Amino acid sequence: MVLALDQARQAAQRGETPVGAVIYDPVADKVLAQDGNRVRELHDPTAHAEGLVIRAACQSLGNERLQGLDLYVTLEPCPMCAGVISAARISRLYYGASDPKSGGIEQGPRVLSHPQSHHKPEIYGGICEAEAADLLRGFFAERRGD
Amino acid sequence: MVLALDQARQAAQRGETPVGAVIYDPVADKVLAQDGNRVRELHDPTAHAEGLVIRAACQSLGNERLQGLDLYVTLEPCPMCAGVISAARISRLYYGASDPKSGGIEQGPRVLSHPQSHHKPEIYGGICEAEAADLLRGFFAERRGD
Repeated sequence: MVLALDQARQAAQRGETPVGAVIYDPVADKVLAQDGNRVRELHDPTAHAEGLVIRAACQSLGNERLQGLDLYVTLEPCPMCAGVISAARISRLYYGASDPKSGGIEQGPRVLSHPQSHHKPEIYGGICEAEAADLLRGFFAERRGD
Repeated sequence: MVLALDQARQAAQRGETPVGAVIYDPVADKVLAQDGNRVRELHDPTAHAEGLVIRAACQSLGNERLQGLDLYVTLEPCPMCAGVISAARISRLYYGASDPKSGGIEQGPRVLSHPQSHHKPEIYGGICEAEAADLLRGFFAERRGD
């Protein structure tokens, strides 16, 4: 999660919402992908940190599924990213801050917990929550000119 | 929808689930993007037809939002694609066959109708439904060796 928080900080420096993510192989003890939000830079509404690292890890493995791998992300994933996590068959999801406005895991449509979800990873929320939330609060306060 | 059905047929020929999609600008009467499912070809769990055409249209316009544009897709979008449609601010969604197993619009977590959805397009289902459903049925029957 330390790497994901660093990616979130880098995203903020690029003017993107500060969310960072990492794909980690816990058996090989290897980071397969790390990135932050790039929606504005790439003009891509799907370029949330989670989507970018999942796509990057799939490319590096030549496989559209990531069984056995862990996703670390600094903010609770939105419904779109929850769908990506399910489609990619991520084994464990670790996230930082909850997102009452846009989250889709333990808030809103709870995409992964819905009986129709084809795959639900193990889910662990609140990892480094304060630091992840502080980053977001600081970013939005600065944009509002607080 | 005729173009989307053609893309679905081409996807089947590539061994992909036969779903096709088109982004259309109804004011300029112009097709901005058309594609079919490429999950296996690209090793990308997000490469559903809807995601590919939305990303392509965003690239061609240099904008992560597609206000005013229509999405035609042969199958009811899944929760992941419903999230992409909301994030991209698509104005009108026209889809073909319903998907009781994996759909996320009028089935399952109903991502766009959830009060937490940031954007809900106009939604029109059942467009060329029989033809879209026949394509899917034929594809899966062939794979099962019926």
